[in-house]
Amino acid sequence: MPTTLTTSDRFPFDLVRPHLDKVETSIREQVRAFDPAVEPYVSYVCNTSGKRIRPALSILVGGAFGNLGEEQRKLGVILELIHMATLVHDDIIDGAVTRRMVPTANAKWGNGLSVLLGDALFSHALALATEFDDITICRKVGRASREVCEGEIVQTQRRFDLSLTKADYFRIIEMKTGALFAAATGIAAALSDADEATEQRLFNYGLRLGTVYQIYDDCLDLVGTEDAVGKTLRTDLEKGKLTLPILNLLESASEAQRTKLNKRIIEQEPLDLSVLVGIAEYEGAIESAVDTACRMLDDCREDLSGLPDNDFTAALHQITRFLGSLLEKCRR
Amino acid sequence: MPTTLTTSDRFPFDLVRPHLDKVETSIREQVRAFDPAVEPYVSYVCNTSGKRIRPALSILVGGAFGNLGEEQRKLGVILELIHMATLVHDDIIDGAVTRRMVPTANAKWGNGLSVLLGDALFSHALALATEFDDITICRKVGRASREVCEGEIVQTQRRFDLSLTKADYFRIIEMKTGALFAAATGIAAALSDADEATEQRLFNYGLRLGTVYQIYDDCLDLVGTEDAVGKTLRTDLEKGKLTLPILNLLESASEAQRTKLNKRIIEQEPLDLSVLVGIAEYEGAIESAVDTACRMLDDCREDLSGLPDNDFTAALHQITRFLGSLLEKCRR
Repeated sequence: MPTTLTTSDRFPFDLVRPHLDKVETSIREQVRAFDPAVEPYVSYVCNTSGKRIRPALSILVGGAFGNLGEEQRKLGVILELIHMATLVHDDIIDGAVTRRMVPTANAKWGNGLSVLLGDALFSHALALATEFDDITICRKVGRASREVCEGEIVQTQRRFDLSLTKADYFRIIEMKTGALFAAATGIAAALSDADEATEQRLFNYGLRLGTVYQIYDDCLDLVGTEDAVGKTLRTDLEKGKLTLPILNLLESASEAQRTKLNKRIIEQEPLDLSVLVGIAEYEGAIESAVDTACRMLDDCREDLSGLPDNDFTAALHQITRFLGSLLEKCRR
Repeated sequence: MPTTLTTSDRFPFDLVRPHLDKVETSIREQVRAFDPAVEPYVSYVCNTSGKRIRPALSILVGGAFGNLGEEQRKLGVILELIHMATLVHDDIIDGAVTRRMVPTANAKWGNGLSVLLGDALFSHALALATEFDDITICRKVGRASREVCEGEIVQTQRRFDLSLTKADYFRIIEMKTGALFAAATGIAAALSDADEATEQRLFNYGLRLGTVYQIYDDCLDLVGTEDAVGKTLRTDLEKGKLTLPILNLLESASEAQRTKLNKRIIEQEPLDLSVLVGIAEYEGAIESAVDTACRMLDDCREDLSGLPDNDFTAALHQITRFLGSLLEKCRR
């Protein structure tokens, strides 16, 4: 039902559901590949984290090329395992106690075991990647996972750093979030024997989509409600993460306001939301971040030009509208 | 000077030094591959951790087959990066503040950044492994790194667990320490086009050698002096790690002593060394662990039978004697 899909603003899960079910089965099979003593921990993380967005993207790109086989799903499994590993480690770093309404691994078993659990997921994912016959696929997975780790480090290192530019911010979120989205779409294209230019366009689509998704997440941290989002919010401010809306705010604040903000940042004090909403341009700062993200979604749609005209390509377009509608909800 | 080498009980660093220098240069080059913001952290870890035993083993095995090229060194670099990643994460888990007389990464920059730093080293190593033309090499590296992570988890999970058998202990140390030693010697043999049976024998050599090395480390934790070893000791007892000498001790303790020990273990109280040395068989427990390890070294030497007769093969033998002499020093 392409008409329903193209007019809907929801994530096109219906189209990928049967394939995602197989991904889920495969993730469960992977769990059994671990030492029996390790299995329950891995199983818990697999059941409680990750929204399977990356596997969905691999599947949709494969579908667009009429190539919906085992390899696309395997790529999805690998990228989801890497993503889950980063979530486990992020939760340690952020001291998060719940994710998607359930206790995090660190809350349940402590930081030590969670460090190792993330490592095991990570190494298993990369061991799985070596099962592709084509080593260039494995190479691309390896590079993407390195980018994610580096992005996380740079972000952690530059907390409370007033010299952070917007270019720095974009570089960080491209690495930490864009890289795995880009791997999902770019490698899926490579697995479908797309020519180099097409692979690059799909890589760009994923990179931009991941970047927009992160901007949305950063806006949500400021304007969302915990009940609706299902995780602790306002943590970016507390942790001194200078996200796009905050950077916009610093730009547009009056001299007195900026001094006040800078002081808190330099002293590494949690940024209080009440300080921010007091700034005349607070809403403008969110608006501007949403505008930036929406413009990137236009570029995403451009990246899809030339793909075969089918339900899967339509669904890749639909995702950009889905994200667009989420972003619109962040405006006051 | 093969005579000097075969009669010496030292680690045969002289023979591998020029090659290890190249490994060192290559590790430094890898550091530059990271984002400039990440580089200083990686550089610190590369300069302060890892004894380059794994690269030395790869080089010696390559040398034994007359194959001392770029690939052997690259394998060494990859395995050392994985090893360094595990050290960074171990130090977080153990709350260690110094390693090799200098502050650990977690002591310098906190647990959060150290989690990510370990991840970055790890992912870089695996990305490097994908550069081998032969995907089976990459596959073996992936598997070894997964084993290491799983070994660490099982060890962490079974602290203070009185049902731990010696078979469990051996399985854990084979995974956490043996796997990377086995990868160093086994994969180096594969890179030298050794036949399958020879590769397997060299894999076994590494696996046993790593296991013996871990038994030595476990004895040292009980009998070493911190000045001589350069790291915090008696941590196994505090952390409830039931190592081979402790398992021997539990076996040979009187009923009253065992009850006392078990009580402390069940209550997860740090095991006090004074409780242990009070047990009549304390020295016997160390002796017995040393005996076990020495028998494994005999098997290691068996594994080397059939290798070409040259200085490198002699050095592989010498390492078993070197470890043997270290073990002897643990006897009272």
